[in-house]
Order: sequence, then C-alpha cells, then structure tokens
Amino acid sequence: MAYKILNKIDSPAQLRELPEEKLAALAGELRKFIIDIVATKEGHLGASLGVVELTIALHYVFNTPNDLLVWDVGHQAYGHKILTGRRESFHTNRQLEGLSGFPRRSESEYDTFGTGHSSTSISAALGMAIASALQGDLERQHIAVIGDASIASGMAFEGLNHAGVTKANLLVILNDNAIGIDPSVGALKQYLTKARVGYKPAQDNIIEALNFKYFGPVDGHDLPGLIKTLEELKKVDGPKFLHVITTKGKGLKKAEEDQVKYHAPGKFVPDTGELLPYDTYGLPLKYQDVFGLTLVELAQKNEKIIGITPAMPTGSSLKYMMEAFPERAFDVGIAEQHAVTLAAGMATRGLSVFCAIYSTFLQRAYDQVIHDVALQNLPVIFCLDRAGLVGEDGATHHGVFDISYLRCIPNMMIAAPANEHDLRNLIYTVQEELPGPIAIRYPRGRGVFPNWQLPFKKMEYGKGEQVRKGSRIAVISIGSIFHNVEKAIDLINKPGKIAHFDAKFVKPLDESLLHDIFHNFAKVITVEDAAVTGGFGTAVLEFAALHSYSATIKCLGIPDEFIEHGSLEELYEIAKIDVESIGKTMTDLLS
Amino acid sequence: MAYKILNKIDSPAQLRELPEEKLAALAGELRKFIIDIVATKEGHLGASLGVVELTIALHYVFNTPNDLLVWDVGHQAYGHKILTGRRESFHTNRQLEGLSGFPRRSESEYDTFGTGHSSTSISAALGMAIASALQGDLERQHIAVIGDASIASGMAFEGLNHAGVTKANLLVILNDNAIGIDPSVGALKQYLTKARVGYKPAQDNIIEALNFKYFGPVDGHDLPGLIKTLEELKKVDGPKFLHVITTKGKGLKKAEEDQVKYHAPGKFVPDTGELLPYDTYGLPLKYQDVFGLTLVELAQKNEKIIGITPAMPTGSSLKYMMEAFPERAFDVGIAEQHAVTLAAGMATRGLSVFCAIYSTFLQRAYDQVIHDVALQNLPVIFCLDRAGLVGEDGATHHGVFDISYLRCIPNMMIAAPANEHDLRNLIYTVQEELPGPIAIRYPRGRGVFPNWQLPFKKMEYGKGEQVRKGSRIAVISIGSIFHNVEKAIDLINKPGKIAHFDAKFVKPLDESLLHDIFHNFAKVITVEDAAVTGGFGTAVLEFAALHSYSATIKCLGIPDEFIEHGSLEELYEIAKIDVESIGKTMTDLLS
Repeated sequence: MAYKILNKIDSPAQLRELPEEKLAALAGELRKFIIDIVATKEGHLGASLGVVELTIALHYVFNTPNDLLVWDVGHQAYGHKILTGRRESFHTNRQLEGLSGFPRRSESEYDTFGTGHSSTSISAALGMAIASALQGDLERQHIAVIGDASIASGMAFEGLNHAGVTKANLLVILNDNAIGIDPSVGALKQYLTKARVGYKPAQDNIIEALNFKYFGPVDGHDLPGLIKTLEELKKVDGPKFLHVITTKGKGLKKAEEDQVKYHAPGKFVPDTGELLPYDTYGLPLKYQDVFGLTLVELAQKNEKIIGITPAMPTGSSLKYMMEAFPERAFDVGIAEQHAVTLAAGMATRGLSVFCAIYSTFLQRAYDQVIHDVALQNLPVIFCLDRAGLVGEDGATHHGVFDISYLRCIPNMMIAAPANEHDLRNLIYTVQEELPGPIAIRYPRGRGVFPNWQLPFKKMEYGKGEQVRKGSRIAVISIGSIFHNVEKAIDLINKPGKIAHFDAKFVKPLDESLLHDIFHNFAKVITVEDAAVTGGFGTAVLEFAALHSYSATIKCLGIPDEFIEHGSLEELYEIAKIDVESIGKTMTDLLS
Repeated sequence: MAYKILNKIDSPAQLRELPEEKLAALAGELRKFIIDIVATKEGHLGASLGVVELTIALHYVFNTPNDLLVWDVGHQAYGHKILTGRRESFHTNRQLEGLSGFPRRSESEYDTFGTGHSSTSISAALGMAIASALQGDLERQHIAVIGDASIASGMAFEGLNHAGVTKANLLVILNDNAIGIDPSVGALKQYLTKARVGYKPAQDNIIEALNFKYFGPVDGHDLPGLIKTLEELKKVDGPKFLHVITTKGKGLKKAEEDQVKYHAPGKFVPDTGELLPYDTYGLPLKYQDVFGLTLVELAQKNEKIIGITPAMPTGSSLKYMMEAFPERAFDVGIAEQHAVTLAAGMATRGLSVFCAIYSTFLQRAYDQVIHDVALQNLPVIFCLDRAGLVGEDGATHHGVFDISYLRCIPNMMIAAPANEHDLRNLIYTVQEELPGPIAIRYPRGRGVFPNWQLPFKKMEYGKGEQVRKGSRIAVISIGSIFHNVEKAIDLINKPGKIAHFDAKFVKPLDESLLHDIFHNFAKVITVEDAAVTGGFGTAVLEFAALHSYSATIKCLGIPDEFIEHGSLEELYEIAKIDVESIGKTMTDLLS
C-alpha cells in the first residue's frame, strides 16, 4: 500500500495525533501522492512539492481550522488540500465541478481565504488577526505563507507596513525558493539571497525595520526543525516573520533542475518526471508566441521597441525578446502597477513600449492605465494575453472583465484580433504609428492557421470587416470567438441567411460598418468571450441608442456571474458561447 | 515692488543666472507669492510652502527641462509652476481653462509627467532614465520628488525594488515632512522618523538594502546645503536617494501649526494665515460628514462595525469614527490595495467593514475588489466619496468611472443615493443585513436638507422609486444628479409630461420598475454624473435589449473624454448634465 499513513489522514486533527517520528514518512507519501496525481491529471507541481514539509508542520503545530492559515497565490496548496479532507477528491483537481486549483472558501473551512492572484495573504491574515483581537479571541493564530516573488509586490509591502504598527498576532512565513513562475527579480530578492547565505545584516534589517520580529532563515525541508521553530513562534506576541528556505520541485529531480518547466509541466512519468511527448507538429502556434516572436522580428528593425512583463516572461513569451534584446526587455516582477507606469515613463521619451500583461492581472494596474497612460494619451501598447475564459485555472484567472473596464477609459483603443494573422499585423501596425494607448486582447492557447508568419500588413484603427454575406441576421463578433460563430453558421446550415462581421476593434467602433449593418438588418447578434455586462455588445447597444436604430439586438458573452474552472469547451457551454448555443440563438432569431 | 527678483524669472534658465546669494531672497518672494495667490484663489497650500527651497535648488542645480523632474502627487508643485514660466497665469490655478492644480504634460515642457494620484513618480522617472540610457543620452538627470506618505504606498516600493537592480541615473528625493494630507502612518514612517532624528541604523538600511546609495537626512530649508548636496549627487552614478527633511506649511505660522487644515485651507488672510470666516450656518451637512457621523452613531450599538480609510481620515470624515472608536477605525496610509483586502479578511470573520475610499482612488484597488471581495461574495461596504465630477481638482480626481468598472463585477451591488437621507438609510441598512459586497457612491460637497439626522429607515436592495408623475417621457436618474433633473423639469414647465424615477441602485436594477416604465413610455432619458460609456444608462439599454423593448432611450452622463478642472457648474455644462442641458434634452424629445 503506497500511502499507508496518508490514507488515514482525513483531517489535520488526525495528523496531529501522529507521533512526530512518522511525519517524515508522511512527507514522502504526500510528495508521491501529489506527483502521482499531477503526472496524469496535470496542474501546478513544483510549488506544492516545495512546501510538503512546511504544510505538514503547519497543520501539525497549529490548530487548523481554528487557527487561520492563508496561502498566498495558492499554487502551493495541493498538500494542504490533501491533508484537509480532500485527498479522495484530489484527482478532480481543476476539472469542472472538481476541486479548484487554488484555495477557496466555498470548498473547505480550511481554506480561510481564496487566492489565485499574488500578494494578498498578508493583508487578509492581518484583517483576520485584527478581527480576532476585537472579538477577544486571543488564542487564535493567524498565518500567511507567501513566496519570495509575491512578497516583492507592492501590496505585500503595504500589508507589512500596516501590520508593523499593530499588535496583531500575525505570523508571516516567507517561503523563499528564489523563484515564482519564472526566477524572482528585484532588489529585495537580492537582499533575501544574502540572508539565505547567512549574511548577517541582511537577516534582520528590512523586516525588523518594519517592526516585525524576524526568525530564520530555516531549512524548509527539515521537519523537526520547522516544528520546533513554529512551536516557539506560537508563543511570540505581535507580528513576526519566519524566513524559510525551500526548493521548488523538491523530491523530483527533474522538477528541481528545471523549475520553470515544472511549475505546471503537463503530463509526465511519475517516477522519473520525464515529460510525456506532446506532438505539436503541424499545430498552429500559440497566440503568446505569435506575440513574442513577432515582437523580436520587429525589434530587429525598430530600435524604439521595448517589452515589459510583470513576472510572466515565459507565460507571455516576452522571454524571446529578453533573450534577443536583454537591454530592451524587462521582467519587473509581480509589480503590475509599476510595469504600467514604467511603460508610461518610457513612452514620454518616444519609445514604443509593449506592456505584456494577462488580462486578469491588468486589473491590478487599473488606475495606472487610467491616470498615467490614458489621461496623458501616451501610446503604450497593452498586450493582454489570456483574455476571455482560460479553462482550468478558473474564476481567478479568466480575463473576462477587460473590455468592460477598459471601454469607459477615454483615449483608449481596444482591439481583439480574431486570429494570429491579425494579432501579428496589429503588433506591426502599432509600432509604426500609434496616436494613443491601445489594448490588444488575445486568448490563451493556439491560433488557427498552419502558417502564422505571413508578410506584415498594416491595419486601420477602428476598422472591422464583413466576412460572410447573409440576408436576415447580422452577427458581429469580436476576437477569436469568431471561429465559434463561423462554425455555428455552418452548423445551422441556412445558406445566405446569416451575415458575419469581424469587428476587430471594440473601441473605436467601426461606425460606418455599424451604420451599414443597422440600415440593412433588423436583427443583430453580438458575440464576445468577455463579460456581457458593459462589453462589446453593450457598445453596439450604445451606438444603436445614440443613432436611434431600433433593431433587435441579442448580446452573447460571459453572463454576470463568476465562471468556475473546467475545460474551455465546458465553460463556453456554460456561458452559452459554444458553437451550439450560438447556433441556437441564430435559429431562434430566424424563426 | 513685492516680487523684485521673482518677477524677472520667466524660466529656470534665468533662475540659474542668479548669484547663489540672491536665492534666499527669491525663496522669500516665492513663498509670499504662493501665499498671496492661494489666500484669495484657494488651492493646496502647505505642500508647496514646504518645498520652496527644494524647488529653487532643483531648478538651480539641474538643467531643466532637459533634466527630467517628476513631482509625485503634485500638490507641492506650485513653486515649480511659478518658476517655469507660469507666474503670470498662476492666478488662474484650478479654474476652467486656467492652470491645473497638478503637473500636466500638456501645460508645460517642465511638467514631464502628469500626476495627481500618489506614488507614481519613481516608476515614471525610472522609465525616463532607462529610456535615456538606451538612447545613449548619459548626461541627462532624472529626479523623482516623493513625500513620506506616498513612498509608503506599494507602488513606490515596486519602483524602488526595480530601480535597485538597474544602473539607471535616477535620483529619488524623499520630501519627508511626516505628513500627507493627514499625518503619515505605518512602520516605514516610524523607521524614517528614526532617520530624521539621526538614529544611524535607520539612515542607511532599508534604502541601501534596495541597492540605492543613501544620502541625508538634510535640512530641506537650508538652500546652500541643498544646492551643495544636489551638485554632488549629479556626479553619483546609478540609483541614489536623498532624504530631505521639510516642514509642511513652512513660513506661514498657522499653516505650520495646523498642517491638516492648511493642506487646502480655502480663503485666508495672507499676512497672518487667519482663515476667512465661512458661514455654514443653516447649510446642509456634507455627504462625507453624513457618512462619518452616521457610522459613529451606528457603531455605538453595532460592535461589528469597522471603518477603514487609506490615508483620508479627514477627507472621508472617518476621523469621527477614529476618535470615537480608535480600536475599530483604521487609517492604513496610501495603500488602497491593502485597505480592500484587509477589509475582506475582516469580513471573513463576521465584521461589518466600511471601506471609505474616494471613487477615483478605488481604481487603485480594482483587482482586490474583484478577486478578494466580490469573487468570495464577502459583504464589504465600499463608501465611494467624491463620486462624479469633483470640480477644481480636475481630471485626475473626478470619480466618473466607478459605475462602469464596478457594474461588470458579479455579486457587486451598486447604490447611489440622491440625497443625504438615502445615504444615511443605506448605511443603516447595510450594517443590518448584507448578502454580498456593495458600493455606495456619493458626491463631494453638501447634501440638500436642513436636517440630515432623521430616524433610520431600512431600504430595500435594488428598489427604485417614482418621484414625479408624467405622461410623455420617463426620466430615470441615479444619484444626486436627481436635483438637476428636478430643476430641469421645473424649468421647462410642461406640467404632467415628464415622469421622474430615482433608480437608487445601479445594480441590481429595479426590474419591476423598469418593466413598468417600458410598458408605459416610448421615450426614456437616463441621467447620471458618471461616464456614459458602460454606465447606468447603459445598464438600462442592456435591460431593454434583453427584454426586447423598443423605446427611444437617451443616455445623459459624462462623455467619453477626460473632463478638466473648473467649477462644478461649469463642468456640468461641459458634460451636458446641467439643468439647462437636461431640460433641452427633455424639450427636444417632447417635440
């Protein structure tokens, strides 16, 4: 029996009944369990392997769920989930109606705070600690576990800065493995590295300067040492900070050696970590690579091109630019606010700055987009990868609000290419001439054409295109949901009835195209893979109201609810923007 | 002649021709000039008085505008404006078509980066410095001047953290006067205070740990000392940090003594600083005070009530709660992201948390509202003061995007009371029972009733109200623009024609009321003091489209452009939501 001890742990209370000498064996089993499941079901691997011992020690020492434990980001919480009653359902991780890949309050009382985006744990745990004090609950412990990439984000600093002037019973544990998804960057990281290697002034200064009691660094894979330290920390009053050194991917050699790849490696052989072959021959390129490679191609001729990413060089494929032109491409760490205003500063000096941020993470720099970029009408280019539904990462990572929150910003242009050719041509166009800021949103995953690298063609801002003629209904789609619309038109098989327009731009709208549409059609359907509230369809409604058109307009898009995790196809169905649902809307409107 | 030297300075080049011994006299004149104008024209006083010497020293030592100077927030930039060719237009400060109260790129080449919101200067100046290096321009200097309240914001930390791993020719000047608008807070502030008083370990650690070369602290009112230090810093490579100690309000005794009041004191006697009497007897209370005082009143009975403000205790009137229940009210400093997630953490523990943030500043915590509050459906109450147009503070401070950016967030309720009674009743209602997050938006300035403190009445979520009957046109207003609509109906004097509905809620919409309206009216006007793109009127359009109503709908609100500074009345006219414009829309639609 592979999981002799683990199989008997249905709650941390049972874990706490184990004699300490059995915990090392449990750690081995837990690590193996994570590897075995993730090897076949996929998911985030390295982070959870790195905190196996820390997870056991925390639940062993602290009285969870009464003591409140917050996992920053939550990539690393698989062990936590498995030890807190979710071992038998863990194989459903990231599947529709299965476990979430991140902590979720609705999933378990042990998940005290939902995470997914980084650097929130200190603020949340401090809020809980202050609440406990006000409620006269002086025994309850409050623990935030945060990685070294996350703690360098401004929000974490804000949490530390506030906590340091309180008496809150707060323990911040720095899980320092020197890497986020990509290697950590920044001055604080260099500083922490000095502490890792025992440089004394670095061990006790920044953190103690913020009024925290500093402990460590300690070896995060030494279970007895961790338990002893945590037991002692329980008795320390006020805000305290434990610096724990861990190895991302610990226990799986290949994951330790290639920590970027094994952050979320896909399927692999559990014993060896060897990645299962995944034949990409003949598959279209990913949108992110079309962006990344096109940027390098253009940057060879255009010296003004700059790339910025907040901690996503691999995920955004800005890594190609960083390799080709290291002095013109910047990974600024998990610092979206800084990334945007840095871009604005560069743009004032005439540079052509591409700020590559996932749609969901641009939410973290919303004010900077408005106040530092759009208000000054600076021609910064926001490349919003992972726009629309992203699938298995779920509600925290879907990029569905961007059209709504960007559309209200004056001066801002918003484009959404339907395919990788348009993405490529947009990138070409914006670096040639750009009158103000623009956001280009494109989805996770692959494009549609076997050959992405056609010669560049300049696009016209705010210009859409009719792609299919028809007499009864005009369908206007924006972005890559285009392809579902085309399939739906084929599916319902009413030749000559459905016209299809690719809007290409949310803002400015192609007013001349829209006037044509409303002059010629009494029935219009808009389709987008973004929130239908305030989205592209709404822009069309506003246009129609402004010009007193009275067509029937049906707006398809993400409904006004948080969409959970699942496969893209499943989620499209839930949002009713899958091929069949779009087809049904067409059929209903035809009848 | 009062301004003998100053009157000859039309540009910093002329300043630099002055012998150094004349600068002290110039400082006296500049200080007097600022006082004389602000005494009659109003504006931000204390911050600019505090940096008179620093401003002169910077333009004297550095070759502006070739060297690039960024003023964080910009409250303190009056002296800079006066010395950079805007002396004679300075009396138009904050007036329509006059100078902006903040630096603006469109106003002067000396304003290298527009500010208004805090903590952006390091990122912007770093962007400029990196650009200069790439362009081979190694002589150009880049200076960010940032206050001690602003540097404690997460974004500033992100800028420092990045700058510290570059070789950028960047000088960060900390203008440390121990106060923002209200006194500075937080652990970093305590730490900086130690440096002010000469505590050695505090002088060189946090900043040096981030790889900056640290200089100071120096006396910010000692002109020769400042000039000498800045001359030396010009020769220092890479990122460097100068800690300057100043006194907010310097040179006007009363302003030094009551720094909070003299941040923006209104009209006063220039020689003495004595505030001119301003008779408020019989005037309705300010909305912010209705919020602040009602919260205290309710908190006396409801122990769960908590108040949080990011650095706006005076402006939001949370100061009343801080005085009455210091343990239950928190000024967390300029840390909007932290404020929101702290509130979320408290809400998980059953507290009733009121997070008071200006509408424009909630933009800085947008992701936290989505990811930490709404996604978890936590009943946090956002009290959005300064919603709508704010007048003289202008484009950086109007709170006009909130409806658009909040409306797309699932679970989020949005209310906008038309008067202080509804505001008060909303505050009462949400602390009694609240199913999820809610934003309550209300304007800058005073309410409308002589008596604000009526007995509490529970409101129904998502319930609007008909306030005037009429046969031809239904006007639906949201929020305090209600009163312009009422006046407009009176103005056009078509008795019985115009019905008026107070929506009270943007989300959820009062669907039953809207069905009634669309069943009974073919012409509908919506009016809001928020962006018309994606706003309340758009919500009505979406509702009408969903239910296939074909009424003519005219949406009035802030057009899709940045509205500048001016009096509220002037700005309403520009946005066409003044009484006359609303009346004209009604008349046009009647004919």
